[in-house]
Amino acid sequence: VTILIAINDWDPQPWRERLRALLPDRAIVTPETIVDRSAVDYALSWRHGPGAFAGLPNLKAIFSLGAGVDHLFHDSELPDVPLVRMVDTDLRDRMSEWVVLHSLLHHRQQRMYDWQQDQQIWDEDVEQPAAAEIRVGVLGLGVLGADAARKLALIGFDVAGWSRTRRDHDGIACFHGEDGLDAMLARTDILVALLPLTPQTRGMLNSSLFAKLARDSRLGGPILLNAGRGGLQVEADILAALEGGVLKAASLDVFEVEPLPEASPLWRHPRVTISPHNAAISTPDTILRAIVDQIAAHERGEPLRHVVDRKRGY
Amino acid sequence: VTILIAINDWDPQPWRERLRALLPDRAIVTPETIVDRSAVDYALSWRHGPGAFAGLPNLKAIFSLGAGVDHLFHDSELPDVPLVRMVDTDLRDRMSEWVVLHSLLHHRQQRMYDWQQDQQIWDEDVEQPAAAEIRVGVLGLGVLGADAARKLALIGFDVAGWSRTRRDHDGIACFHGEDGLDAMLARTDILVALLPLTPQTRGMLNSSLFAKLARDSRLGGPILLNAGRGGLQVEADILAALEGGVLKAASLDVFEVEPLPEASPLWRHPRVTISPHNAAISTPDTILRAIVDQIAAHERGEPLRHVVDRKRGY
Repeated sequence: VTILIAINDWDPQPWRERLRALLPDRAIVTPETIVDRSAVDYALSWRHGPGAFAGLPNLKAIFSLGAGVDHLFHDSELPDVPLVRMVDTDLRDRMSEWVVLHSLLHHRQQRMYDWQQDQQIWDEDVEQPAAAEIRVGVLGLGVLGADAARKLALIGFDVAGWSRTRRDHDGIACFHGEDGLDAMLARTDILVALLPLTPQTRGMLNSSLFAKLARDSRLGGPILLNAGRGGLQVEADILAALEGGVLKAASLDVFEVEPLPEASPLWRHPRVTISPHNAAISTPDTILRAIVDQIAAHERGEPLRHVVDRKRGY
Repeated sequence: VTILIAINDWDPQPWRERLRALLPDRAIVTPETIVDRSAVDYALSWRHGPGAFAGLPNLKAIFSLGAGVDHLFHDSELPDVPLVRMVDTDLRDRMSEWVVLHSLLHHRQQRMYDWQQDQQIWDEDVEQPAAAEIRVGVLGLGVLGADAARKLALIGFDVAGWSRTRRDHDGIACFHGEDGLDAMLARTDILVALLPLTPQTRGMLNSSLFAKLARDSRLGGPILLNAGRGGLQVEADILAALEGGVLKAASLDVFEVEPLPEASPLWRHPRVTISPHNAAISTPDTILRAIVDQIAAHERGEPLRHVVDRKRGY
């Protein structure tokens, strides 16, 4: 039994070492070291090179090492085997940390206090709404979106969520479908994007969507948080919306091109907060343990969990 | 029935107006407009002038308009009537917002990312522990401390709390007394001070206490959050601890002297985050409604709630 691990853009070394430690009895190969292609049972990928998984007659499944699976579809020779999403409570919790941090950062006007501190200004009379007066809308109610929505509600925000198909969650105003999207946007002061990247969601964070956000925010304008995928957003539209008063501020963890090019005006925009696509980086150990457990269960005859619906793209 | 409202350092106008609107049938007087001192049944105070409540023969209770009551004891002529603390879920929730924001701000290394953004540095490989690996210690398990501890635990932090006398809370490692304090400090990466200011707590956030904090923090050193009272902290010791590597960073909402003097080095310290004593400012409307409800209940013969123990000082 051989496992093929193919990683690009990340340092593959800690992944290979950790996988070898977890599975000392298996052969662990890379696209460069593979000899017997028919021996490969499972493949693990982060942005694997196109064709890396072609010609593997006994391949049973491909596991994504990151939360998104859109990277898999860049390979036109992707074999027709189950694709398994990485679902990991550690990653989920880290994503919610980021979402709660940036929701509170904007809600509590931390950037203004940073500026006041810089100027040595003491002004305690700034108007500060309570979290219950701030309407957060979470785009995506999968494992990540549902957890973030739940934690935002526990902090006290007035939380809604949107999903393509209907999902219900206690304490969250749930919207779905195209009509539901407009209804949710109309009551959203802080928009949190945690959607997968699919042909349907690509570029949806654009001028047309921003124009549908609530105009009566107690925070002085709508705020965008994107920790989903960079491809969801149109950065030129974000900048135009910030300049035109359609958006008040944004926290972005993901970008159309990563690393964010030095020339991007987002770097220097005073109302944009940037993190380098690490809102939710899980450790190789945590992710590989979950995959190793899935492989063991699959070999015992149990079904794979978190299998991607290729039609939906996630 | 007359109500005396005495406010210093805040604008008294919105308080008086709101109180008149809530109690149109009562006489609302101030220390300057009072005529018949024997008519006064209840007094409301924020830093009232010493002696303002002396010679009120029918006074039944004094209500504090802010969360702390230490300001009442600056009056050596304070009458011997029940003193009522302001307990307000709105204020409690706002305090927890501040505590969760600043815990996450330090945990997620936002100041480093602010610096990276300023320098246009994209570095996604920064080590980031999970919240479960970060031990938060909350000093004070009253209404504010208990709520903050609960919300920090829901976000995923490893939370402990300390109180002078024993209190138990699900999901929180509870310590108490002098021995318990040292034990909690030894396992604390982020220390959250939400204690009342009393002769026992004055100046307790000092070099000796900082030296007892955990030395093996995953965040590179202990972090201090103080949103309790400025008198809890010795600012010279905070600065020395930051310089000496005993503290890594601090978020302070309260100060020995407020407004924080322009000459204070805290303003310009790169690892100090300052907010102008507004972590939890409630609105006059919310606070006065709670007091008006208490007065109505008291007049129906019900006991006052949240009465201060004068011996403990809170």
